Amino acid sequence: MLIDSHNICYSRFLNRQGEDKENNSRNGNFGLPQFLATNIDMAAATGFCQSSAFYCQHSPEAARITWTKNCNPHGLARSFSWKLLSSTPNIKLSSSSPMPFLGGNYLPKKERIQVVSPNIEAPSMTVEFLDAWEDEYDGIIIDPESLPPSANAFASALQASLSNWKLKGKKGVWMKILLEQAELVPIAIQEGFNYHHAEPGYVMLIYWIPNEPCMLPASPSHQIGIAGFVINDKREVLVVKEKCPCSCSGVWKLPTGYINKSEELFSGAIREVKEETGVDTIFLEMVAFRHAHLVAFEKSDLLFVCMLKPLSSEIKIDEKEIQAAKWMAIDEILGQPFYQEDQMSKRVIKICLETSERHYKGFTAHQLISKLDGKLSYLYCNDTNNV
Amino acid sequence: MLIDSHNICYSRFLNRQGEDKENNSRNGNFGLPQFLATNIDMAAATGFCQSSAFYCQHSPEAARITWTKNCNPHGLARSFSWKLLSSTPNIKLSSSSPMPFLGGNYLPKKERIQVVSPNIEAPSMTVEFLDAWEDEYDGIIIDPESLPPSANAFASALQASLSNWKLKGKKGVWMKILLEQAELVPIAIQEGFNYHHAEPGYVMLIYWIPNEPCMLPASPSHQIGIAGFVINDKREVLVVKEKCPCSCSGVWKLPTGYINKSEELFSGAIREVKEETGVDTIFLEMVAFRHAHLVAFEKSDLLFVCMLKPLSSEIKIDEKEIQAAKWMAIDEILGQPFYQEDQMSKRVIKICLETSERHYKGFTAHQLISKLDGKLSYLYCNDTNNV
Repeated sequence: MLIDSHNICYSRFLNRQGEDKENNSRNGNFGLPQFLATNIDMAAATGFCQSSAFYCQHSPEAARITWTKNCNPHGLARSFSWKLLSSTPNIKLSSSSPMPFLGGNYLPKKERIQVVSPNIEAPSMTVEFLDAWEDEYDGIIIDPESLPPSANAFASALQASLSNWKLKGKKGVWMKILLEQAELVPIAIQEGFNYHHAEPGYVMLIYWIPNEPCMLPASPSHQIGIAGFVINDKREVLVVKEKCPCSCSGVWKLPTGYINKSEELFSGAIREVKEETGVDTIFLEMVAFRHAHLVAFEKSDLLFVCMLKPLSSEIKIDEKEIQAAKWMAIDEILGQPFYQEDQMSKRVIKICLETSERHYKGFTAHQLISKLDGKLSYLYCNDTNNV
Repeated sequence: MLIDSHNICYSRFLNRQGEDKENNSRNGNFGLPQFLATNIDMAAATGFCQSSAFYCQHSPEAARITWTKNCNPHGLARSFSWKLLSSTPNIKLSSSSPMPFLGGNYLPKKERIQVVSPNIEAPSMTVEFLDAWEDEYDGIIIDPESLPPSANAFASALQASLSNWKLKGKKGVWMKILLEQAELVPIAIQEGFNYHHAEPGYVMLIYWIPNEPCMLPASPSHQIGIAGFVINDKREVLVVKEKCPCSCSGVWKLPTGYINKSEELFSGAIREVKEETGVDTIFLEMVAFRHAHLVAFEKSDLLFVCMLKPLSSEIKIDEKEIQAAKWMAIDEILGQPFYQEDQMSKRVIKICLETSERHYKGFTAHQLISKLDGKLSYLYCNDTNNV
């Protein structure tokens, strides 16, 4: 399955949160279950949009659907034999079965699959499908809270649902499987789902129905780091030596770290400096950032260098994290052999120094509201009087 | 399992790629299998480092280990009964078994687990552990290419290995499970693993052994978008109307999109403009960026606005992607009702205009080499003569 982000509508990720919040309060939350009411961005991330633009607005068309209808089993996906299952109870599938991992007795439970026709040769059955949402991109979001807990029932309902969605011309199918539902993962993979992204607690699977390149957006691609440049009135810079069991422990460097989930860049820089050195600071400006690829997990990395103003001077290191911290003259920092050999680090320190001497202008942070998502976000830009 | 990025050593993600490349060529690749030789960043992302610093260097200490040793089965994790399995062939585990999802016959295969003691009450067995790597953070990276294909053998080896790693005082355990190995996912989850991240083709699982907060780095947190501002000599701006089935289709906006995997920001902007409008451009500067949270999949989003210079003027739209594109006067763009109501979008357009009139200075891109990873990366900064 090809995952290619370049044709994905950028703005559709951004414009649902605010709208849905508004509509949720106005329209009694559409009867959304909590997992969707709080994670409604799922809907915006779903399905098929070939446009790519910045300022789009979606109408809140997502609506809950539970399909139960007469279904011709010959329309089901894959070669799974419903006839065999209906006529031969307790049969154990051989290893050539499409679902060998289910092990022993593979028979749809009667409360989920009801045979309503006596004609075994071409049975017409009432099938209960998976609970799911449609979105305006012809996409499907399966409700993780209503997945059948038994492997058999899940497999049957998934096959029937996929067949149904194919007939309806649906495109992308999203299925979030919670940690405690892990037993269902291999069944979904067997049916043709692929991994999209995961984090502690769940894995998100996708299925692209059309016979054309997958248009679903890629999974998150970047880690975001920050570095704090803190210089005092004596022109000394706050530096640390890390406690990491590696050769960098000999180098005095800027405090750095990763931002926390949903943390602002400048807040992350202030927090990291405080944690590592005990020094309180305020954010002045974002002086530069570096973009690197194929870093952790083959993903990319953005490191933002923040100029911070110290509000205190006493150093109290976090002994779990670092070996030592101190205020150090710029020349001493750059005089270390490491900086002589590292273009990038040397340039960053020099830019920070220029900034502190007011010979350089970076970006400041401006909190603005956007109609896209109805939220306040930070715009980082050069703070001139003209804009 | 708590995943908290704020105490993670930032630089350890960055400094392995180059070193390992160098050492691979010098030392005959250490005999690394291809999956690790090409994805060696895995090692840098593994384990436990409480420091947080920018410019660290690691020594290439990762070395392949295959453990096979006498192991007391009473030291195994969880309450899985080896005695039962050894003495009762072909037993079918009941639903109260710790691994009910394995279905039918759950017995370690003899080629993987060999009983070498006749004492059934306290058997001493030679257990084959999972192939894995140690790293310098007391972490373990399990080799996905040598996972036992059978669920039984995998479960046995995983339990034995976890027990062994616990005894050795190991900390973080990483296990990449490929799409075709999905059957192993629920077994690992049952043993206490959690999801870390995933993308098409694999899911990465983690296990944190110490009885303290997990120090493993969080999964990638951000999607990266770009917007292209292209203005011609007549002071007209290149705008598009998207084909997305939503209400934004009426608004003329800047071309935007997501960057591709490992793509430079400016390259992504040039590509998106070309794809959507057919217009060739070159990158001039990065004028601003916006940081938004809780966007798709509850992750965050950075949108970089790029000033591009047109090299051609003829418009040829990608009809699959957008409805229309044209050159439009700035006043007309800002005159649309949408821009009157959207602080963020209005500010961005005004900044771009100021940039084009040389009243505003953004960041330019500078390719520099870093000793950290031995690679060329782009530093975006204000291009003054002083730095």
